[in-house]
Amino acid sequence: MLDRNVIQGRGFRNVVEDGRVTGFQLVLRNPNYRGVAASLLDGVEVVVDGERVPDSVPLWTLQGRTFTLDELRATTDVRWQLDEPATITVPRPGGLATGVHDVEVLVYLRRPYFPPMVSRTTFTASAKAVLVPPAPEGGLRYGVSTYSYTADVYTLMTLEDVLADVADLGATGIEILGEGNVPGYPSPDPAWIDTWHGLLQRYGLTATNYGSWVDTEMWRDRALTGEEAAAQLQLDLRLAHRLGFTSVRPKFGVTSWQLDPHPVWEEAVLRSLDLAADLDVVICPEIHAPTPIRHPVTQGYVDLIERTGSKHFKLLIDTGIFNTAPVLELSEEIEVGDDGEVPEHLRPLAVPMADLVEVLPHVHFIQAKFAEVDDDLHDLHVPWGEIVPTLLEHGWSGWLSSEYEGRREPYRGADQVRRQHALLRSLAGAR
Amino acid sequence: MLDRNVIQGRGFRNVVEDGRVTGFQLVLRNPNYRGVAASLLDGVEVVVDGERVPDSVPLWTLQGRTFTLDELRATTDVRWQLDEPATITVPRPGGLATGVHDVEVLVYLRRPYFPPMVSRTTFTASAKAVLVPPAPEGGLRYGVSTYSYTADVYTLMTLEDVLADVADLGATGIEILGEGNVPGYPSPDPAWIDTWHGLLQRYGLTATNYGSWVDTEMWRDRALTGEEAAAQLQLDLRLAHRLGFTSVRPKFGVTSWQLDPHPVWEEAVLRSLDLAADLDVVICPEIHAPTPIRHPVTQGYVDLIERTGSKHFKLLIDTGIFNTAPVLELSEEIEVGDDGEVPEHLRPLAVPMADLVEVLPHVHFIQAKFAEVDDDLHDLHVPWGEIVPTLLEHGWSGWLSSEYEGRREPYRGADQVRRQHALLRSLAGAR
Repeated sequence: MLDRNVIQGRGFRNVVEDGRVTGFQLVLRNPNYRGVAASLLDGVEVVVDGERVPDSVPLWTLQGRTFTLDELRATTDVRWQLDEPATITVPRPGGLATGVHDVEVLVYLRRPYFPPMVSRTTFTASAKAVLVPPAPEGGLRYGVSTYSYTADVYTLMTLEDVLADVADLGATGIEILGEGNVPGYPSPDPAWIDTWHGLLQRYGLTATNYGSWVDTEMWRDRALTGEEAAAQLQLDLRLAHRLGFTSVRPKFGVTSWQLDPHPVWEEAVLRSLDLAADLDVVICPEIHAPTPIRHPVTQGYVDLIERTGSKHFKLLIDTGIFNTAPVLELSEEIEVGDDGEVPEHLRPLAVPMADLVEVLPHVHFIQAKFAEVDDDLHDLHVPWGEIVPTLLEHGWSGWLSSEYEGRREPYRGADQVRRQHALLRSLAGAR
Repeated sequence: MLDRNVIQGRGFRNVVEDGRVTGFQLVLRNPNYRGVAASLLDGVEVVVDGERVPDSVPLWTLQGRTFTLDELRATTDVRWQLDEPATITVPRPGGLATGVHDVEVLVYLRRPYFPPMVSRTTFTASAKAVLVPPAPEGGLRYGVSTYSYTADVYTLMTLEDVLADVADLGATGIEILGEGNVPGYPSPDPAWIDTWHGLLQRYGLTATNYGSWVDTEMWRDRALTGEEAAAQLQLDLRLAHRLGFTSVRPKFGVTSWQLDPHPVWEEAVLRSLDLAADLDVVICPEIHAPTPIRHPVTQGYVDLIERTGSKHFKLLIDTGIFNTAPVLELSEEIEVGDDGEVPEHLRPLAVPMADLVEVLPHVHFIQAKFAEVDDDLHDLHVPWGEIVPTLLEHGWSGWLSSEYEGRREPYRGADQVRRQHALLRSLAGAR
């Protein structure tokens, strides 16, 4: 699906020719209610951060061909279809800086069925567009979780649109939720599995982590047995492996405010370690607020790693544990008390970097959880300026997988993920 | 695509069992970020127009099977997937009245990975839902134009979603814009044409009118010749015929504020009448404000009908000519002066019914243009209470095809079309 805004989220980038940045591009959907012959287009004015580019300057790319405005006016066999966006190229040596830009466009279109004096129509649109720099070489790997697009997937975006978004911002890893993104879960059509692999290839993405659940309180009258819990975990390990994922995060039911996992967790994991080794898929319990790193739950996982010596049971860190400010942005997923007091489970844990460093050898994957990156690429809650250098200094080279969990406004997830990647890569590239 | 609101626009209807109305249904998408085993669902409260139905009462239909709440809790092999909506059936003898209802739902879901005291989560959603009565037997035929969904098609809805919406509200005719809705226009892939016919069959829809354009000012230095204009019209006649349409509305470029068509119109039409007869497709010029029925332009069309005796050139009436109040709702398609004065071309023509009656034998198709039907099913601009009885009294039995042209807010077209059909059918059924 196209973005409803005429200015699309995807496709905003600097243009590099012969190693030099010569301008920038943006992608527009046709703002009219019909497709038109390209000869009826009459230019596009682009205003970036207040700087105006006259309507005759930008180049138009339509149906795979690029035109100046004069060439466009003379065309006989090119169209701007409703379902085929145009790429607008604006010459500008050096291009645009990394980060959030105010972009406005005025698209001019001649409509012969309007009276001649008014047949040149103006369509305007504006957006905050996020320019994401290329990922720095070496070190961290950059991915995104479909969770970031909650409420937009299947409504505004297909799963393919999500993958296209992730690829467009220059990330190379895709994390999914098994019970969210696999049609026909737990038994997808084999044709869908082929489609999935085709999509990974098309968008140049690596399947990273697969989120799963072990709903210990599946029924009201009894909890899952260890055998049932293991069966659920193994089902997901097999499915994740078929889809190309290399780790599975099982979310077990909990028994306390401190998120102590149901005791079956250990049996379920132990019974599944051989299978995990056979499939070469790492089982990753999630360290998630309000559980910090120095905590019996985390220690229980580390004990199991050390006791078994398994290479297929490691930690997954959710960066919400590093928050230095409470997340007070409401979403369907975040609850705040009526009294205005920040409830205990929302108080920032501000886990120190030293604790992270201590367990880092056991950390397989990082969910880069966040709620808001502002127009200046400042994260309101997560101290990326400490986290990213710590990871790099200690030579950690796994996936940082964006997990946006702020307000679920339409298209906000896609926009925020771009901002977060611009921020993370700026920090990593500055070193 | 699903509607972003948890309460879907489609599927809101009364339930008829053995000829009696026993309740109503609504369709919900899963409000969570993951799909879940149905045993984790814990009821849904439905509040309609302030009347509360307790959470244990509604029935759930998931993956083709229907359950009471107790049955749902005991299931082992049913899921509420993110991409598969649930149908909720609420018992209520007599069902709900035609029109707009305030609907609120509270969906309860157990989430074992939350601390036990808070693991029963509530998801709320609300909507104004429109109950559309079945189309009255005989007389008028009810259709919808894809134009109604401008800006939502290809962004929030696929073309198939539009057809599904049209079928869901009980309309049987679909009108399209050739240059808007045919991928690859003017040369669609033959496979797409098969897909199109498959969709018509699947949704029980008849292809009605095909909107086309003859852009006489296609190029800036010269107008189309009569031959070129005829070629464009004939291209669309052939394509419309392949897609199963029985009429084509060509929109010619105009030369005046009164929308006088470019003089080539007549040559283009005359050169195409034989082809139209061969294909049995009616060419329908559109009578559209600010051109009323008693006007030289309309008279020119009637003259051609009478002169040629052709059965393949008839009038299409856009009901905007009957407006009794100016449309001051702004949309991308409607312009209003900065001085607050209603510009001449927006002043309501209020064409009298007597004028309609006079040309009715020549009228092939009616585009039921409108901009707003309020919560009481009152159209703010179009006097349907006069138009519908006039058409029925004079035995006109063509298509009334909804053409929503109000504010282009997301999903508003779909909602307004349901309201208009509820209104039109109430008026027709009351006779």
